[in-house]
Amino acid sequence: MRPSGRAADQMRTISIETGFTRHAEGSVLVSFGDTKVLCTASVEERVPPFMRGKGEGWVTGEYSMLPRATHTRGSREAAKGKQSGRTQEIQRLIGRSLRSVTDLRKLGERQITLDCDVLQADGGTRTAAISGAWVALRLAVQGLMKSGAIKDDPLTRKIAAVSCGICNGTPVLDLDYAEDSSADADANFVLIEGGHIAEVQATAEGSTYDEEQLLRLLRLARTGCDEIFRAQAAAVAGA
Amino acid sequence: MRPSGRAADQMRTISIETGFTRHAEGSVLVSFGDTKVLCTASVEERVPPFMRGKGEGWVTGEYSMLPRATHTRGSREAAKGKQSGRTQEIQRLIGRSLRSVTDLRKLGERQITLDCDVLQADGGTRTAAISGAWVALRLAVQGLMKSGAIKDDPLTRKIAAVSCGICNGTPVLDLDYAEDSSADADANFVLIEGGHIAEVQATAEGSTYDEEQLLRLLRLARTGCDEIFRAQAAAVAGA
Amino acid sequence: MRPSGRAADQMRTISIETGFTRHAEGSVLVSFGDTKVLCTASVEERVPPFMRGKGEGWVTGEYSMLPRATHTRGSREAAKGKQSGRTQEIQRLIGRSLRSVTDLRKLGERQITLDCDVLQADGGTRTAAISGAWVALRLAVQGLMKSGAIKDDPLTRKIAAVSCGICNGTPVLDLDYAEDSSADADANFVLIEGGHIAEVQATAEGSTYDEEQLLRLLRLARTGCDEIFRAQAAAVAGA
Amino acid sequence: MRPSGRAADQMRTISIETGFTRHAEGSVLVSFGDTKVLCTASVEERVPPFMRGKGEGWVTGEYSMLPRATHTRGSREAAKGKQSGRTQEIQRLIGRSLRSVTDLRKLGERQITLDCDVLQADGGTRTAAISGAWVALRLAVQGLMKSGAIKDDPLTRKIAAVSCGICNGTPVLDLDYAEDSSADADANFVLIEGGHIAEVQATAEGSTYDEEQLLRLLRLARTGCDEIFRAQAAAVAGA
Amino acid sequence: MRPSGRAADQMRTISIETGFTRHAEGSVLVSFGDTKVLCTASVEERVPPFMRGKGEGWVTGEYSMLPRATHTRGSREAAKGKQSGRTQEIQRLIGRSLRSVTDLRKLGERQITLDCDVLQADGGTRTAAISGAWVALRLAVQGLMKSGAIKDDPLTRKIAAVSCGICNGTPVLDLDYAEDSSADADANFVLIEGGHIAEVQATAEGSTYDEEQLLRLLRLARTGCDEIFRAQAAAVAGA
Amino acid sequence: MRPSGRAADQMRTISIETGFTRHAEGSVLVSFGDTKVLCTASVEERVPPFMRGKGEGWVTGEYSMLPRATHTRGSREAAKGKQSGRTQEIQRLIGRSLRSVTDLRKLGERQITLDCDVLQADGGTRTAAISGAWVALRLAVQGLMKSGAIKDDPLTRKIAAVSCGICNGTPVLDLDYAEDSSADADANFVLIEGGHIAEVQATAEGSTYDEEQLLRLLRLARTGCDEIFRAQAAAVAGA
Repeated sequence: MRPSGRAADQMRTISIETGFTRHAEGSVLVSFGDTKVLCTASVEERVPPFMRGKGEGWVTGEYSMLPRATHTRGSREAAKGKQSGRTQEIQRLIGRSLRSVTDLRKLGERQITLDCDVLQADGGTRTAAISGAWVALRLAVQGLMKSGAIKDDPLTRKIAAVSCGICNGTPVLDLDYAEDSSADADANFVLIEGGHIAEVQATAEGSTYDEEQLLRLLRLARTGCDEIFRAQAAAVAGA
Repeated sequence: MRPSGRAADQMRTISIETGFTRHAEGSVLVSFGDTKVLCTASVEERVPPFMRGKGEGWVTGEYSMLPRATHTRGSREAAKGKQSGRTQEIQRLIGRSLRSVTDLRKLGERQITLDCDVLQADGGTRTAAISGAWVALRLAVQGLMKSGAIKDDPLTRKIAAVSCGICNGTPVLDLDYAEDSSADADANFVLIEGGHIAEVQATAEGSTYDEEQLLRLLRLARTGCDEIFRAQAAAVAGA
Repeated sequence: MRPSGRAADQMRTISIETGFTRHAEGSVLVSFGDTKVLCTASVEERVPPFMRGKGEGWVTGEYSMLPRATHTRGSREAAKGKQSGRTQEIQRLIGRSLRSVTDLRKLGERQITLDCDVLQADGGTRTAAISGAWVALRLAVQGLMKSGAIKDDPLTRKIAAVSCGICNGTPVLDLDYAEDSSADADANFVLIEGGHIAEVQATAEGSTYDEEQLLRLLRLARTGCDEIFRAQAAAVAGA
Repeated sequence: MRPSGRAADQMRTISIETGFTRHAEGSVLVSFGDTKVLCTASVEERVPPFMRGKGEGWVTGEYSMLPRATHTRGSREAAKGKQSGRTQEIQRLIGRSLRSVTDLRKLGERQITLDCDVLQADGGTRTAAISGAWVALRLAVQGLMKSGAIKDDPLTRKIAAVSCGICNGTPVLDLDYAEDSSADADANFVLIEGGHIAEVQATAEGSTYDEEQLLRLLRLARTGCDEIFRAQAAAVAGA
Repeated sequence: MRPSGRAADQMRTISIETGFTRHAEGSVLVSFGDTKVLCTASVEERVPPFMRGKGEGWVTGEYSMLPRATHTRGSREAAKGKQSGRTQEIQRLIGRSLRSVTDLRKLGERQITLDCDVLQADGGTRTAAISGAWVALRLAVQGLMKSGAIKDDPLTRKIAAVSCGICNGTPVLDLDYAEDSSADADANFVLIEGGHIAEVQATAEGSTYDEEQLLRLLRLARTGCDEIFRAQAAAVAGA
Repeated sequence: MRPSGRAADQMRTISIETGFTRHAEGSVLVSFGDTKVLCTASVEERVPPFMRGKGEGWVTGEYSMLPRATHTRGSREAAKGKQSGRTQEIQRLIGRSLRSVTDLRKLGERQITLDCDVLQADGGTRTAAISGAWVALRLAVQGLMKSGAIKDDPLTRKIAAVSCGICNGTPVLDLDYAEDSSADADANFVLIEGGHIAEVQATAEGSTYDEEQLLRLLRLARTGCDEIFRAQAAAVAGA
């Protein structure tokens, strides 16, 4: 029995609200249950130095948690003067994941930054962030296509992410905080619509796991991401 | 005629939504028109080093703007490794304002931190932050009283803040971004229910102003703060 | 009775010594009683990035306190690796104040930096800094006019600043440290010769104050600034 | 055909030289072909603040690359004033991996830090680091047991890591730099002697991959780690 | 012929003004010609962590140059967020020099910090700083002895410093900026009254020098320091 | 009797192993007994901003100690976010020393960086670093000459460095850690083949020293450097 009463392969309620803020080219409030992340896509007509003059664009991600998104207040990274290793790891994952489904040549020499700010945390913030950021990116790209800045769609496949883990010996889908903090092993899967894997990060916490368990987690992740893909499609259609 | 069509002494629509996030002891989403600030109050059973052993508490504020709260994306302070002078100035103002209506002895040796994170900016973010933070603080204090941790209410007067300015020669109340960026002079007033002033910060931008104009701005601020006090009362009552 | 024995509307002895150091284009040691600030104006033939190509100049201020300018030694900001919020707040105020009396177009594409380093502190360091910095700026501008680099004087009005406060219920002018640390409310006024206000920053410390008290403080400030304007004129004339 | 002429399931020559430096409680120079990492284990009789008073120890890792370990010189992180996201990600992985095979209670309240400094890089520096760090840790623990500081061995299973990837459509083992920089997908596996998985990090670079390919990479990793386990055993035996 | 018209073994005018600022336990404005350094000694009744519990005191130095102490404005180290290598090198030299003539056991568990802030620079700022700091330290120690905090004088020998260099082939004493910036070799000597050497730092800039030239520079330094010792004695006597 | 049993004028065994790593244009592992420093020379076809457009090159040094190069582990400067004063002082010394024997005009507009990373420390790391760095620089320059990038040799004289000190009253050559940490005075000499001095840094630690002792240390340094010059010549010849 899971703390939330969910079945082992049951996602929390997914909600993707578009247009949550006004200024960004794409703006989404994504919720996986009580985990709520504001994802905005900002288009800038310049690329970072290492990409200049290549005729290609760039997609990058930034991530932060509001100090009181969590049970106890965390100190503000801007006040401490540096981003934690965890923050940087997540930022790199967000950017890498979204780039894996973007044709940077078709994007042209411009950068899209996905800012993922966690307003409330209950486990799975990075996977919610990736899933929501794709919708924000999609909306920003649609704006660029509508205005004629881009001709060919650089973004033809959806990408989504979900965490799975082994809790009390049972593989379960979409861990909330109660499960995440006590799981024997947990894994984040970033999957692409149509069956391919963009990224797997699987870590044994308490005990270790074997090949069969890794595969069972991957299959749970497929179930979860299929549900996220549907929610993404509905959000884009409704925007 | 103001860009928004408002009368010179007309506030934007004020909204104070309590319980916007779950974990904080007080959590409020305050909106002054399109300016939206998430204010949370976090109670910690310790005080900063300079207050230890005095039998008193401490109230402090932190402020940040999400990178894309604004028309163009600003860089993330955590990534730059330091908070701007503007951020620090606003944080100090928030803390000072709330301490001016808090009896720190009655609070006991604990700290309440008011985190004010701007989700969307359209002028007046610091004044909305102070006005919303008071509600979050009030809710946190009520929780402490309810649990018996505090006996006597340390927070007996409301505090609110609003910006006023001289636009095209006319003193107006509650500047939005369009007015704020072109005002000849602007001023932030932090007022206490009952007629007292906690803080005045008045700056000439384009031209300078005189004593009479300062007083007219102060009177506009009184009008605005009276409306905010009513919204605060309603929010606390409805929480 | 004030700790110093001064009348309520009495300034401390003001001294403005020009040519205190040799290299700067303007160099002034300003004293308000025991508060001593070295203000230098440095002309550079370039402007900051955000001002490039506008055909205008820039005026900015920097502020620091020597570690042992105060009763007890403060740690050095360069050693701590960052400037405090207080320092940044004061720097911003100095620059904003001096720009409010400078015609940046007439200055041409060059920057003048006013470095205000407090050698000894006894209250009112920021107001002494602004008052002295104007003289250093004036001297630097005169040098530019003399050399033919500037044709029309970009600096036609004096600016001065003074602190006032309510001590033991009485509004008093030009607070020293003993008064500043125990005042119920204190305010910094930056005034322009001829009657206009550039900036008001009024804060209630212990108790709060009302409109009438704010006006009484403003009138004291006018008295004080008139005396500073005379001292500035004499210093420039004697340079 | 691989650039190095190796078979798809062939490791580079593994060398683990113990006692490379004198002062550390464990010191190892590990080479996977031209990748050379100096791993030292330092025992300190204190634990980090978050572990104090629990009666348990702590194992952590630090990682750095000498500026000219690579083809072109990289700037020194100490000079830049911060560690890159990549460095922090690797440090966290090293620590997490070694803790997954250490019984922290048996270690007692002491910390062992594994410093992994890359002297020369040719792909796979993080996996060589983990594999070498285990030997350094093993030697430090043996010293503690020999001196009587520890009674029960806290380290009963070996851990090793290796990178695998899909190059030109073929899954291959132990990527060198030429392969790493052009692989379609690459994965780092941290495996525990006896068949369990501690960590999988698999990323699609150019294209994406599917479940079957992930499993083939895992099987290659098993082959590689078995060889590393033998080299670790020989190194410890010969120390 | 030297740019200043001085003889090869002629010092600039030395002036040591005590009591330049009020708050510090020792305060001195030292001038070597146009080089002016404010040296203050601050006594604190605590020692740094590495000295705790030894029953000994500590003497340390800090150094800074005001931004416009020099011909062209330098940026402020506090604004850049770090102290330059040059600043740190000089700070270490000041502390080491003064400790070499202080009996730390007799000082008791307290720290004296010598802050050396260069108000105006014309070569030789570090040597003026050391020479002036000794007087500030002497005055602070006298205060501690007078108050009974210290019984036995921990400071029985004077220390002074001076720069020498080879300019146009001629060894000269007490380089000003014009000489310092064009010298073939320059050296800083820290000498102790009575004939001993505390520190020699001799560097070839343009060309190199030999043993004989090093000795000639040392003899010039003796001449200069004898003059400084007399000025120090006079300043202490007159304080 | 020295702790190592060496005669007063006896160096430790010097070893200079070229080609220690593969990627750098010059790579040397230099050992003075148990002190081992990896010195690499990296050629870059650009110069720092302050050297641009002069038609000259630049030579600079960087220095670091691996955390466990020493008896007890030191914290990593990259983790602390800044380089110590000691590190910066040594870096400046390395660069200055090598530039004193390099004709920057003949080098052309390119920079050579000497990275000196201490793998194991037993006293004298900075002097070993300079001595080894010269060989790495020499090899890099030879490569540039061989490839035709440079025509005239910019590096015609060898440079070497050694530490000497007064231990138990006796001047001794090439201090190891045991001597270095207990010496009454120690000095680092950077000498140029043929008799000239590039740099002397002599510091009294416990007691002070006089002119005669300084000269005796200098003569010991000559003996030591002659031996280093021979080892450098052999290393270059054998590369």
